[in-house]
Order: sequence, then structure tokens, then C-alpha cells
Amino acid sequence: MSASFVTPNPPSRAQQIHGFLLQNDLRAWIAWRPDELLMLSGYFPYWGASLLVCFADAEPVLFVPLLEPRDHIPPGLRVREYPWGDLKCADPYSVLVSLVSDELLKAAGKAEQVGMNPSSARTSLPIQAGEEIPLPEDFAVQFSALAGKVDADCRKAFADLYLRKTAEELECIRRANQVANVGLQAFFENLQVGIAEAEVAAAVESAIYRQIGHDGIFHSRAWAMVQSGPNSADAGRFNRSTGRRLENGDLVLIELATCVNGYWSDLTRTAAVGSPNIKVAEILTLAGDAQQAAIDGIHPGASAGDIDALARDRIAAHGLSAFFTHHTGHHVGFRYHDPGFIIAPGESATLEPGMVITIEPGVYVPERGAGARIEDNVLVTQTGHEVLSRFAVSGK
Amino acid sequence: MSASFVTPNPPSRAQQIHGFLLQNDLRAWIAWRPDELLMLSGYFPYWGASLLVCFADAEPVLFVPLLEPRDHIPPGLRVREYPWGDLKCADPYSVLVSLVSDELLKAAGKAEQVGMNPSSARTSLPIQAGEEIPLPEDFAVQFSALAGKVDADCRKAFADLYLRKTAEELECIRRANQVANVGLQAFFENLQVGIAEAEVAAAVESAIYRQIGHDGIFHSRAWAMVQSGPNSADAGRFNRSTGRRLENGDLVLIELATCVNGYWSDLTRTAAVGSPNIKVAEILTLAGDAQQAAIDGIHPGASAGDIDALARDRIAAHGLSAFFTHHTGHHVGFRYHDPGFIIAPGESATLEPGMVITIEPGVYVPERGAGARIEDNVLVTQTGHEVLSRFAVSGK
Repeated sequence: MSASFVTPNPPSRAQQIHGFLLQNDLRAWIAWRPDELLMLSGYFPYWGASLLVCFADAEPVLFVPLLEPRDHIPPGLRVREYPWGDLKCADPYSVLVSLVSDELLKAAGKAEQVGMNPSSARTSLPIQAGEEIPLPEDFAVQFSALAGKVDADCRKAFADLYLRKTAEELECIRRANQVANVGLQAFFENLQVGIAEAEVAAAVESAIYRQIGHDGIFHSRAWAMVQSGPNSADAGRFNRSTGRRLENGDLVLIELATCVNGYWSDLTRTAAVGSPNIKVAEILTLAGDAQQAAIDGIHPGASAGDIDALARDRIAAHGLSAFFTHHTGHHVGFRYHDPGFIIAPGESATLEPGMVITIEPGVYVPERGAGARIEDNVLVTQTGHEVLSRFAVSGK
Repeated sequence: MSASFVTPNPPSRAQQIHGFLLQNDLRAWIAWRPDELLMLSGYFPYWGASLLVCFADAEPVLFVPLLEPRDHIPPGLRVREYPWGDLKCADPYSVLVSLVSDELLKAAGKAEQVGMNPSSARTSLPIQAGEEIPLPEDFAVQFSALAGKVDADCRKAFADLYLRKTAEELECIRRANQVANVGLQAFFENLQVGIAEAEVAAAVESAIYRQIGHDGIFHSRAWAMVQSGPNSADAGRFNRSTGRRLENGDLVLIELATCVNGYWSDLTRTAAVGSPNIKVAEILTLAGDAQQAAIDGIHPGASAGDIDALARDRIAAHGLSAFFTHHTGHHVGFRYHDPGFIIAPGESATLEPGMVITIEPGVYVPERGAGARIEDNVLVTQTGHEVLSRFAVSGK
């Protein structure tokens, strides 16, 4: 845990994409999942029906629906429209396939040198977040003639592009955490005996939505789940708000996912209402101590398993290891849960500068009627780490 | 538009499912999308990693993750657990495949008599709504050996199961509309010069989230988008809230999607702030008149195209047909947008008792800096229709 590593700064996003294409013998990559578009180009779709083609030797082309708002498309992207939303067009997707085919013929080679991820599972939601992406069910089939490289190795290599954030992307993730902090302030301000979990959560989400329009924020949405008293002991299995009203001595836990202009923060806080008993207070203190132990160990070259063990061992020292049942963390930023290795027992993958991970150990003890988790988003720096999500007001 | 039809009440959900399986020569259907589970069983998943198998000649079986909360699973479903969320299980999905295979061997025949929809596009989100369903990318591939019937005809027949709601389901959709109305009250109460669109929308979402815990509501979440003044003229293309502050004479439009215990309401209201000019006021009045004309025409046997024309002709009579660019409506209830025919020009499909459709004509005129849409959810009854979404307080 002590060695000092000298590792290069993360390459630019364009460099990373170019390297991925060359190393996988690809002339082009077709992307359409919202988080893919964000990661590849900085563009976050409104409808989720946009599509980006990145080329090894040409500028990327972005295809957007007729109905897409344009004011949040980053400058410098070549944009082509297709008739999604045109009542007179019976099949806009066949038009899209044809337009993409044109571009591929110009700049790329055979289908086996064009890749894509045909699945829509686990993507982030677009700005229009009320339902899943509106592409047709056989979308992947329609594109299978254009993109022949969809194997798992290639998709894995593509997913690795999510791991190392650039300086510009880190600024966006910082911003998401700043906005999330506005929500956490609302959380702490609303903690009082008698208020319902769902009322606290609603206040948090509302505070975050209201940030739209400030400082270039065109999208700001949160999913806040608050669990109190005995419900907090469920927080290792699921997070949801109920109508339960806070009582003196409760622990109150908030799981808070925040998306700002497409970039994500994933935070958890736990606080006590009034005076918890000593067995409950132990849980809260221990969750914080375990989290700090793991954070203190983060530096380039540390393995994910070692970081996990720092938190897990601390909890085990209190005889409570059976009550920390989940992983210690995951990558975050382009999604609520980015792809990539998790911070879990025995995971040998090592941290590199530019990675952003959550650190979120928890202790959930049903027989004490209490659970606690503290979660922050931590950047791996050249020399160690930087917590992106702690601010003066919200406390730990 | 005048004939009186005698059509049977919608069959029970179990009857509809049984009929679908028999008519498609299926012994079983594997469902996993959240709206599929809801429609087939009344169960709405928390994580989105549950799976239901319906059989032609046996009771359905529900597979749920280890981490799934159990208190919202309807009574009478046979539940089996699989180790999703167990840190010690490297591949919970292979366990699931094996468990499902066991059940299929007991009660069903060959894979070509087992159907499923392998796509995850366009599903509703589960209770945990912050990201898309957490199944693995190759989930459909893993199940392809078990379910051989995935063709488009079969999927179309399955989608038709969404069209006719039962009495019990209608009660749930009514409830969603009642909860949505609490949000609409917050909308009207917050309309004042100087407030930002995003602030109005946040108040609406908050009011709806706060309903959790009342009257058996375990999930209540809204997506509210508010557009004012010139932004309302964009509402035919997209709905989003910005930081723009309301001004005297604005039209203000809210698009409101509400999910209560899995069932959906989809509403739009438009209101004036202060005194709009006469050309703006015309738009608001016209949207309401066109909507009422379409609603008045709804009865069993009416074609979707005819209903659309009732609204569209009214707008055309004002010389504004170019400014109503989208369809008049769609099915709703199990999703924000249910599958099935849309209410659009030339659509020959006819309405039947038990169908619930939106009626949402709009008029969006950029040169007047204003747009309006009024949207309600309308049930087709034995003799005509019933608007499910109008309540005294919220006005039209």
C-alpha cells in the first residue's frame, strides 16, 4: 500500500477512442446508448434515439431525431437528422440505417471492421428519463448487417473506455457532485421527528431539479431513497422510501443518485435523529470509520481487493462482518454504475489515475433496527486520491 | 360515429393470457420486462431483475433476486429466489437459467413452444428507476436455448395483451390518475410571474413522491416537464423544463408522467399566466376544443383514424393544421406509452371496451411564442367513454 507509482495522466478522450479502434482492428464503432454517446462525444441525448458513428480515420457523425433539441449538442460534431417523429414517415429507422450505411461506405470498410454493442441493458437513461430508450425492439437486428463486430471481447474493450476520465469529464463529475450536495443539504435540513421518509426524499429531489438553469445546467435530476429506523437495516438489499415517519433515535439513510447534464454522482449519507442508543450509534460510527479506512488506501497501483479489505476488516474487527453483505464500490460518472471491475473481495484489478470510484461500505443489523452506509465518489490521482463529494455543509 | 355496438366486457387477465398461449401454440411464456410482469401478474419489480414464467397448464412461477423486497409481491404467486446480489455467487444468471429450465421441463415442452421478447427496448422502468434494468447484456442469448419462439408475429400477439384492461387494472390506473391530480394541483398553485419552469416542475414531482405511504401506495414517482412562453411552442417536439421564469401573458404547459405502484397516468395541462394576447389565447382555447371533440367521439367501434380526425379537423378549421404535428394519442396504463396502435391519421384499428387511450392534440406556433396541449386518459366503455383523469380542482 506504500509504493509510489509514476503513471501517465489519462490520455484525451479522442486518443483513447483512436487507440481502442486500432487495437481492435476496427474502422468504425456505432454507439447509441445514452452513456456511450456521452462518453464518446460529450453529447447527452434528449430522446435516446440518437446514434453516433466514430471512425478510425474520419470525424465522428451524430445522427439525431427530427424532434431532438439542438442547443445541448456540443460544438464540432457533424450532425445529420433523421425523420424520427415525422408523422409522415412510416419507418424512420430504415432511413437511419440507410444514412449510417452511406457514412460507413465513405469512411469504413467491411462490416466485420465495424463494431457496436447491440444490447440496451444497463444503459443510462436519456434526458427524457421516464421510460427506456425509444429505439425499436429489433434495432440491433436492423444494424447487424452494418456492424459485424459485436463479440464479448470487443464489447469488453469498449467498456474499458469508461474507466479513465479526462480532466474535462472530471469537471462535469465534480459539478454533478456539487449539485448532489444541494440535495444533501435539503436532506439534513429536513431531518426531524415526524416527517415521512418519502417527504424527506421528495425535498431532496426537488432541490436538485431546481438547479436547472443555473451555471449551464440543462439537466438535473435525482433519485433519492430515504430509509429510517428498522427500514435502514434493509438498505444493504434495496433502497426505497416509505411513508414511515422519523422517530427519535433513528438512523436515517439516504441513497442519492444525481445526473447533471448526463454525468453522475452516487452518494449515501446516514444521520441520527436525536439520540440513538449505543448499539445503534456503533453502527453509524463504524460505517464512517470503515469508509475512511478504504478511502485512505486509495492510490495508483492499489488493488480493488485491497481497498475492499480495508473497509471489510474494520467491520470484522467489531464482529459485524456478516452485516456488510455487498461490495465496497464501483466505477461511476458516465452512469449511476459505470462498467468495469468492482471494489470487492479478491478483485485483483488495480487503480489508475483518472478512475472515479465509489467507496460505500455499510453495516445493516436488523436485530438492532438500524443500518448505516456512507458513500463518496473518489478520484484516483497521480499521487493518491481526491474525494469529489465532500462539502462543508453536508458533513460526512 | 353513431352506431351502438354490443361488445363483451374485457375477459379476465388469466383468460387473456391463456387464450394468447393457446392461439400461438405456446406451452409457456418467459417475461422479464417490468411492464410485462405487471401486466401478466400485477407484480411490479423493484430491481427489474425478476422473471416470470406463465404456463398454459400450470400456475405461473416468479423468480426474484435475493435482494428483492417481498412485501409488494401479490399473494398467490409461487416465488423462487435466485442469488442475484450474493457476493459469493459469481454468476447468478446461470443459476436463474438453470432454475427456469427446471420449471420448463416440468410443465412445458420443447423450446419452440416457449416464447419470450428478447429485447429490453421500450420497457417501463422498475421501482428502482434511476437506470435501465440490470440484467446482463447477453441475457437474451442465455435464454435462447430455453425460449425458441421470439418471432415478430408472436411478440405482436403478446403486445396485444396490453390493450384491454380488466376492472382491477382500471382501478389501479384510476389511482395513478388521482395521484397525478395531486401533482396538477401543485402545478396550478405554483403558477406565478417570476417562478422558473424547473421550480414548478420540481414542486409537482415532489407532491407526487410524497403520496407514498398513503392508501397502499408503495411507489409513486413522476416526471414533470414544464415549458413556458416561447418554450411552450417546442412542446410538440420535446418536453423539458428550463430555468426560464414565467412572465405575464405566457402559456405554461406541463407534461406529467406518473407511475403509481407500476401503473401509469400520462397527462398534459396548459394554463395562461395573467392575460395572454388574443392570438395566444386562441391557441389555448383551440387545444381544449380539439381535445374535447376527439373525446366526444370515443365509443366502441370507432376507428383510431376517425378520432384523430375529430381533433385534427378542428385545428385545421382555424388554419393551424401545420402546427399540430404529432399523433392524437396512444394506449396507456402498464407503461407511459403502452404498445398498440396509435390514434393517428388513417389508422383503421377500432376501439374496444377496456382500452385506455390518451387524447392529446396540441397546437404549437413559434411565431406566436406559444403552444398548448391538453391530454387526458380516456377509458372506452361499453356504451361510450369515461375520462379517468379530470378532477374538480385541477380544471381542464
